[in-house]
Amino acid sequence: MAVLSVAPFDFVVFGGTGDLAQRKLLPALFMRDRDGQITPDSRIFALSRRPVPDFRRDVEHALREHVSEAELDAGVLARFLARLEHVAVDATSDDGWPDLVKALGDGDDPRRVRVHYLATSPDLFGPICEALGRYGLADARTRVVLEKPIGHDLASARRTNDQVNAVFDETQIFRIDHYLGKETVQNLLALRFANALFEPLWNASAIDHVQITVAEKLGVEGRGGYYDHAGALRDMVQNHLLQLLCLVAMEPPRVLDNEAVRDEKIKVLRALAPITRESVGHSTVRGQYRAGAIDGQSVRGYLDEQSVGEQSQTETFVALKLELKNWRWAGVPFYLRTGKRLQQKVSEIVIQFRPVPHRIFPADAGPMQANRLVIRLQPDEHIRLLMMTKEPGPGGMRLKAAPLNLSFAETFKQRFPDAYERLLMDVVRGNPTLFMRRDEVEAAWAWSGTILDAWAQADERPRPYIAGTWGPSQAIALIERDGRTWYDETLEGV
Amino acid sequence: MAVLSVAPFDFVVFGGTGDLAQRKLLPALFMRDRDGQITPDSRIFALSRRPVPDFRRDVEHALREHVSEAELDAGVLARFLARLEHVAVDATSDDGWPDLVKALGDGDDPRRVRVHYLATSPDLFGPICEALGRYGLADARTRVVLEKPIGHDLASARRTNDQVNAVFDETQIFRIDHYLGKETVQNLLALRFANALFEPLWNASAIDHVQITVAEKLGVEGRGGYYDHAGALRDMVQNHLLQLLCLVAMEPPRVLDNEAVRDEKIKVLRALAPITRESVGHSTVRGQYRAGAIDGQSVRGYLDEQSVGEQSQTETFVALKLELKNWRWAGVPFYLRTGKRLQQKVSEIVIQFRPVPHRIFPADAGPMQANRLVIRLQPDEHIRLLMMTKEPGPGGMRLKAAPLNLSFAETFKQRFPDAYERLLMDVVRGNPTLFMRRDEVEAAWAWSGTILDAWAQADERPRPYIAGTWGPSQAIALIERDGRTWYDETLEGV
Repeated sequence: MAVLSVAPFDFVVFGGTGDLAQRKLLPALFMRDRDGQITPDSRIFALSRRPVPDFRRDVEHALREHVSEAELDAGVLARFLARLEHVAVDATSDDGWPDLVKALGDGDDPRRVRVHYLATSPDLFGPICEALGRYGLADARTRVVLEKPIGHDLASARRTNDQVNAVFDETQIFRIDHYLGKETVQNLLALRFANALFEPLWNASAIDHVQITVAEKLGVEGRGGYYDHAGALRDMVQNHLLQLLCLVAMEPPRVLDNEAVRDEKIKVLRALAPITRESVGHSTVRGQYRAGAIDGQSVRGYLDEQSVGEQSQTETFVALKLELKNWRWAGVPFYLRTGKRLQQKVSEIVIQFRPVPHRIFPADAGPMQANRLVIRLQPDEHIRLLMMTKEPGPGGMRLKAAPLNLSFAETFKQRFPDAYERLLMDVVRGNPTLFMRRDEVEAAWAWSGTILDAWAQADERPRPYIAGTWGPSQAIALIERDGRTWYDETLEGV
Repeated sequence: MAVLSVAPFDFVVFGGTGDLAQRKLLPALFMRDRDGQITPDSRIFALSRRPVPDFRRDVEHALREHVSEAELDAGVLARFLARLEHVAVDATSDDGWPDLVKALGDGDDPRRVRVHYLATSPDLFGPICEALGRYGLADARTRVVLEKPIGHDLASARRTNDQVNAVFDETQIFRIDHYLGKETVQNLLALRFANALFEPLWNASAIDHVQITVAEKLGVEGRGGYYDHAGALRDMVQNHLLQLLCLVAMEPPRVLDNEAVRDEKIKVLRALAPITRESVGHSTVRGQYRAGAIDGQSVRGYLDEQSVGEQSQTETFVALKLELKNWRWAGVPFYLRTGKRLQQKVSEIVIQFRPVPHRIFPADAGPMQANRLVIRLQPDEHIRLLMMTKEPGPGGMRLKAAPLNLSFAETFKQRFPDAYERLLMDVVRGNPTLFMRRDEVEAAWAWSGTILDAWAQADERPRPYIAGTWGPSQAIALIERDGRTWYDETLEGV
């Protein structure tokens, strides 16, 4: 596929020596450079408080770790490193800001896009934006990217949004959720809206229920201080899982542009039935991991993690049963679960269709399974449709479940780009369709806040679960009492 | 897949030295023997009028030609040839019948299935059945298989059916149409009725039109005498094409058994709008091939074929536009075409879905095609679903048509058995689901007869077409004036 260059840009990464920049942002920009999508005069500025003596060497190390050797062309590497500059800037004082202004130059070319990527603690979003405004770095050709989490609750999210909006217009603000940049998530939109086949089935008449799972094997890894203050609902559900839910459940937008798509997404968030004190015990399960084993290696429990309070009641796992109060989805439960220290690292969406209304096949044709669409975000991004087919052979009608690969890897034989590659280029192109609008973030907080309040009022404490399992048994019960089961590929045998 | 043995049988082939027996029936029985589906004591009798000096050697030659070398296991070959016996029997006199009775034995085991397969001219069906009755070879454990064509028109079909029914009960009669034994045709039933996905779309709301093509490259080959008397409508449409139409269009049967399936098929035949003198010019095209070239080899025209009348008005090609007058299919045209000396040898059913009602994707996402399901019967049996998908890559939403293989060859990695293998075992098992009931044959003749009459009344003469093309240009016009196009894989590029 031919790749069109984006406009010349200056890309400024606040938190440029941090984990996200080294592991995701710079490798993503490198890959776009490698594919010829970045103009020769585009530049990248990585910022951190203290000076870094040999910054380009550090980045080269990071690229060698996070880009495959086959893709690490020496010429492209040299070209990429030459674009890079480190600038020491302190977000909370005036230190370094004049250096940044000088490094960027007077910016007399209005076609030159400027991107400020805030890969920092969200507490700094306000102060950084304020300084950007003060130093004349927030003009119309400037865009600002905010990493999650935006706020800790509705009030703090509003405060942060107010601070950012005081400097930038909403059209300049890109609230990133990298799940939306995944190829399979994009492909879900193509499947739903570029084919006449799925949309007539995409509702309560044909769909039994939906599952969204984001499971990690990792624990809190050095982020105990942040995590213990947040928990799984704030860290994962309020953003990633609800965003995925929106794309699955939304009505067809008028066009695939930012306002139309986000108008449809917010309708989904607003249709979410509130989980209140009355329903919280029935519709949610909180969990917290205890010592256990991941892949045969023993791991400690959450309470023994660094920077976690000894009596912490923070949930490291949450399972939810949601309902959407609208015409399309009435009566279709959405089961969501996410957690740390689970058995498998897997993110996926499962659309479970209803069984056929009536079986016409004789008993010796074998068992029938209902159709199921599985959108796997990671690892091994793919989309699979489970269908029943006739087993070939002269023995009469014998049915067999066959998983159909709808990500067409066979057809394309292409590397799936990382979500950040797509999204960073969308920022440069000024396309915010896959980013969250202010009202979305706040609607997601409003709904999540109701659950947090209900948990607090009900004194709903996390259930312990052994690290390396699928969470507390109550999470299994949550779905099983409806006569359904969490989808687990390893149990399927197909 | 484990293959269960069928009951012990004696299989009697009338026309046992003929083309069908040598090319299809005996190889199919060999393959079933090879897979262990035939009991050690089962026997095969091949009949022809004159004695054959070294019959087993002839059959060995035929098997070497029509069975792949890898499958021609020497041990199985010896076992199979040992089952075989040739008996000289004259269908039109008493010659040889006592020999057949003696060869079969007194038949004191009622569990032993007896099959008479009439691979002869249909004129002999009546006399053979009469003799079978007279010689005591038509008792309750006996089944008789009738090859097409059954009759030349409704009156002669009724006459033949009366003669056969005078000796055999309808449940003993297996009117074979080998198209129904194709794996992909079977799989169509599985797709439609074992999945909840397709049935809600299987109607006029979602389907734009259906095409059924049975194209041959061969001419009349040595069958000029028969063919010139029949023509494409009688030879192909009245049986094969209408049978395929029935399976595509029928309502879900109550169960997949013979009465329920055939009750649904006959409803389709009865829903066919008659093509009368008024509509015949608009809804049908007759063609007759002229000299041309097939695969670069020049071939003669139909009128120069052996045993074809110089002034023959017989059609070697027919294209039809049909309508079904029922709730499900009102307004959905079915385009059928079949012919000899066409560009390609291909039999397939194409379900063309309607396009999406509204495009949400920007212009640079590229063109969109409507979904299409292609059921290929031959060559290379497969089922493909054309879907739109997102082309992987960071360049935003670019759509691409991707053909999805629904025959799951990847999953099964099995040889697709020949249709006759399945159907012959169905005869032994006594399962007539995939065979035609008397009322079906007669309904198909009644409808076809109306067209034949309309052609005769309208003096509708065949349009010439060059051998090696897709038939007369009027056949293209038949579909193009509706704004549609005959599906041709080579034009699709996918």
